Amino acid sequence: MNKRLFSIGLALLLGAGYGVTAFAQAKPEVLVKQRVAVMILHGKYWGPLSGMNQGKVPYNAEIVARNAGFLDALSQMPWDGFQPSTKDQKTNALPAIYENPAKFKEAQDRYRGAIGKLVAASKGGDEGAFKAAAGEVGKSCGGCHESFREKL
Amino acid sequence: MNKRLFSIGLALLLGAGYGVTAFAQAKPEVLVKQRVAVMILHGKYWGPLSGMNQGKVPYNAEIVARNAGFLDALSQMPWDGFQPSTKDQKTNALPAIYENPAKFKEAQDRYRGAIGKLVAASKGGDEGAFKAAAGEVGKSCGGCHESFREKL
Repeated sequence: MNKRLFSIGLALLLGAGYGVTAFAQAKPEVLVKQRVAVMILHGKYWGPLSGMNQGKVPYNAEIVARNAGFLDALSQMPWDGFQPSTKDQKTNALPAIYENPAKFKEAQDRYRGAIGKLVAASKGGDEGAFKAAAGEVGKSCGGCHESFREKL
Repeated sequence: MNKRLFSIGLALLLGAGYGVTAFAQAKPEVLVKQRVAVMILHGKYWGPLSGMNQGKVPYNAEIVARNAGFLDALSQMPWDGFQPSTKDQKTNALPAIYENPAKFKEAQDRYRGAIGKLVAASKGGDEGAFKAAAGEVGKSCGGCHESFREKL
């Protein structure tokens, strides 16, 4: 499934099919709203896992599995919203996104890879495996947030 | 997986585990932001499917399968955000949500059931099966939007 979704995502990035037409028509302010929505929901579902990883929240295997599944979907959602048409919108996204798309794509792939490992680790219910995977996710967030987002 | 996620959702609704603690602590304005985020992303991923169902957008089996998967996740996300603590926030959610929680839950279940059928139908790539399932999804949106949301 993931591989299939990845292929679809790639097809969209490369400009094939309906999706691109739809994105091309989406207003810049709508694209930004959708990107922000994805980040808000990352907060909802990554927040507790980050807390568990840091020992601030008791480990709960069921919440980990559920949230990892949601993050698997969410982690695929923001990217097609980073269109040059959104450059003039009020956002924390830096112009580097459009100046260095290959590096931006690398950071996305690293993050998606880390989420894939989190999903796999969450299935066994093992806290150690979860923490190892969650640590990688945490680091991979920085791939975009340090180089492609305004310092908050 | 869906059954498992449903059980987890139920456990959360019934007050078990970490999740509830987290929700109880979440500020009303955060809960509303998260709910709105889920609806924005429903727009992003249901919009094109609704267009395909109405013949306004060419049918694309890959987009249908991808978006149905995303909607499967998104359709599980808003419910725990409907806490009585959010009653005084500026939202389109009606007090009926808290006055008639059983009917609200029924509407949620009907919507979740329709999305389950959409996910199943999307796997075969058959346009007729997609349209039948999408029609049910469209109707089930009304379960909440007609009785539990202010008329827009």
